[in-house]
Amino acid sequence: MPTEPEYPWSARVDSLRSSAIREILRVTTRPDVISLAGGLPAPELFPTEALASLASELLSSPRGPAALQYAETEGHEPLREAILRRAPFPAGRFGLDATLVTQGSQQGLDLLAKLFLDPGDEVLVETPAYVGALQVFRFFRAKVTFLPCDGEGLRPEALAEALRRRPKLLYLTPTFQNPSGVCYPERRRAEVREALRGSGVLVLEDDPYRDIWFDAPPPAPVVIGHDPVRSVYLGSFSKTAVPGLRIGFLLGPPAVVRRCVLAKQATDLQTNTLGQHLLTALLAHAGFARHVEGLRAEYRARRDALEAALAARLAGRLSWQRPGGGMFLWARLAGGGDAARLLEHALAEGLAFVPGGEFHAEGEGRDTLRLRPFAATTALPRAP
Amino acid sequence: MPTEPEYPWSARVDSLRSSAIREILRVTTRPDVISLAGGLPAPELFPTEALASLASELLSSPRGPAALQYAETEGHEPLREAILRRAPFPAGRFGLDATLVTQGSQQGLDLLAKLFLDPGDEVLVETPAYVGALQVFRFFRAKVTFLPCDGEGLRPEALAEALRRRPKLLYLTPTFQNPSGVCYPERRRAEVREALRGSGVLVLEDDPYRDIWFDAPPPAPVVIGHDPVRSVYLGSFSKTAVPGLRIGFLLGPPAVVRRCVLAKQATDLQTNTLGQHLLTALLAHAGFARHVEGLRAEYRARRDALEAALAARLAGRLSWQRPGGGMFLWARLAGGGDAARLLEHALAEGLAFVPGGEFHAEGEGRDTLRLRPFAATTALPRAP
Repeated sequence: MPTEPEYPWSARVDSLRSSAIREILRVTTRPDVISLAGGLPAPELFPTEALASLASELLSSPRGPAALQYAETEGHEPLREAILRRAPFPAGRFGLDATLVTQGSQQGLDLLAKLFLDPGDEVLVETPAYVGALQVFRFFRAKVTFLPCDGEGLRPEALAEALRRRPKLLYLTPTFQNPSGVCYPERRRAEVREALRGSGVLVLEDDPYRDIWFDAPPPAPVVIGHDPVRSVYLGSFSKTAVPGLRIGFLLGPPAVVRRCVLAKQATDLQTNTLGQHLLTALLAHAGFARHVEGLRAEYRARRDALEAALAARLAGRLSWQRPGGGMFLWARLAGGGDAARLLEHALAEGLAFVPGGEFHAEGEGRDTLRLRPFAATTALPRAP
Repeated sequence: MPTEPEYPWSARVDSLRSSAIREILRVTTRPDVISLAGGLPAPELFPTEALASLASELLSSPRGPAALQYAETEGHEPLREAILRRAPFPAGRFGLDATLVTQGSQQGLDLLAKLFLDPGDEVLVETPAYVGALQVFRFFRAKVTFLPCDGEGLRPEALAEALRRRPKLLYLTPTFQNPSGVCYPERRRAEVREALRGSGVLVLEDDPYRDIWFDAPPPAPVVIGHDPVRSVYLGSFSKTAVPGLRIGFLLGPPAVVRRCVLAKQATDLQTNTLGQHLLTALLAHAGFARHVEGLRAEYRARRDALEAALAARLAGRLSWQRPGGGMFLWARLAGGGDAARLLEHALAEGLAFVPGGEFHAEGEGRDTLRLRPFAATTALPRAP
């Protein structure tokens, strides 16, 4: 292999790593592999037909050219209004203008990292934590501290202890987390809010799975009840509508959102206009609520099928907590062990999953793994 | 007004400024204002009909769900191939894999700034320079140095002099620049390449207006002939197709592009899938070349109309160089003066333009202004 030329990289580049999960996903597109590794929503459940007719209608209408033109950095106004109407908290909580449509919720993290992180700044995360967030925080050279969690989420006493160091950000995914599936019950949310009181830390709550609940709707976000001036709420339409439009959003206090808008101008000018117009039409579609109900039913059935199979074949060798929503089942090798090594054997047998190490601090969580139910198990719900 | 709460901003936030141009554009949407200030491509020239039928066809086909799903960070493979086929230089110049589809070419600048800029690093730009690039470089706290230009582009001796300081990046827009409209002739391109030889600087050539030429096709990009290992080429489909899909691209040496891909993973995962699929179909459409020819003819006619009006009414009070392509006409107040103050008077009379100061180093270029021809002047060309 030829040696690479020398480049005057920024200091940031040292913390740039590819996600091992992406590498595994490449392997698992092989047709001979049964993959429980994926993280993609099921495309057969997409509202494709509805989007086809909405796209055709939109682009053939007098609004067509506007849906293809440059637009405001903040986002398409009717979409921002729909986001506020659908938000799981009272209108006006953050101030009505403080909405930004982002290029997926991942972009919200990039913008916030730009605005808040200097090298060495501390960011608190859960154990395990969402890998995409770890990538951003590390790229901006933050010191990432993993806080201990149990089956109900972040341990409040550990949070209180860590807050004494006055970290800059706390990143939380309290509702059907990727990867753990954990949903903090109401009491734990209250305890976390209590630990946060007066700390001054900015809380980023990332909530993409809220609508994909199986047994009961989740409690209100943790930031509801926390100081609104210290709260940012990130959401996404990748799980309920489709991921390929790349549309998420960010709600927060005006002073923060205003700077996110300026940072976004410098980053990519704006989120794609066509996707915003299409999503606006889809959210207004009479069939959309039924579509989301159908998703819940289908993902619930898939969870049940996977859990039943694990119980029948691997009880005693794997332990897990039944996820109440979201897209993953998180498990632990009952006798300890190394899931990454187990994966090598599994791949040789044509089975793939995601070893859990990457969701943890370096060297930890080796006995954990993330599974995703993959096969359609019931008749498909009718898309709107 | 309530005081803003205190936030633990990063050092970066001090260099975050809104573009004054955006503020002017807000004013000029007033229906009573005749605006020569806009920077948007003309929506009546968009290939809207073609995109309507391509969208309907795509989403109703078996490929529909894939066009709505997550996809590879690098970009949709058939689009990357089309980009390489259409690039204004020989295939394989940078290595065939070194393509990244970006969220507009603005995102290419964000990714490169992340990879190369530590605070205080020097970036060389032209005078005047594209404002979107200045915003990114300043946000990443670079020291931006404006180099002198004349009617044929960057002055080679000034470049040679500046390169002795070993700056990190040189940012060039040699072909129908926004705002100046300048297109470096072949000889100047060769002189710039000569000045660059052996310097080791990484050259970013931003080339969104190449296809919008009026009188003759522009010469090959400056980076062709420069060391390929030190060259990055940025392109966009915002001017030839439509801006609202937000699709641009970046071509460069594999070591650089590979890291851009990793940086993009952390930034927004990927460019929107639907837009990439639609653009692929549009580029393959038999009518696309004719559509671009039609754009050239129409923008040429608009340039001619604006120039004739200026010559008839303002000769002696404004001076300008006829732009050979692109979307702007750059002018100077013949007797000196302050274009920002002139704008106040102009707005009172219902006319808007962009004062040129913002395209310069602080306090310079006050006597310059950017005009955009705005009215349809000929029969519209038929979109494909």
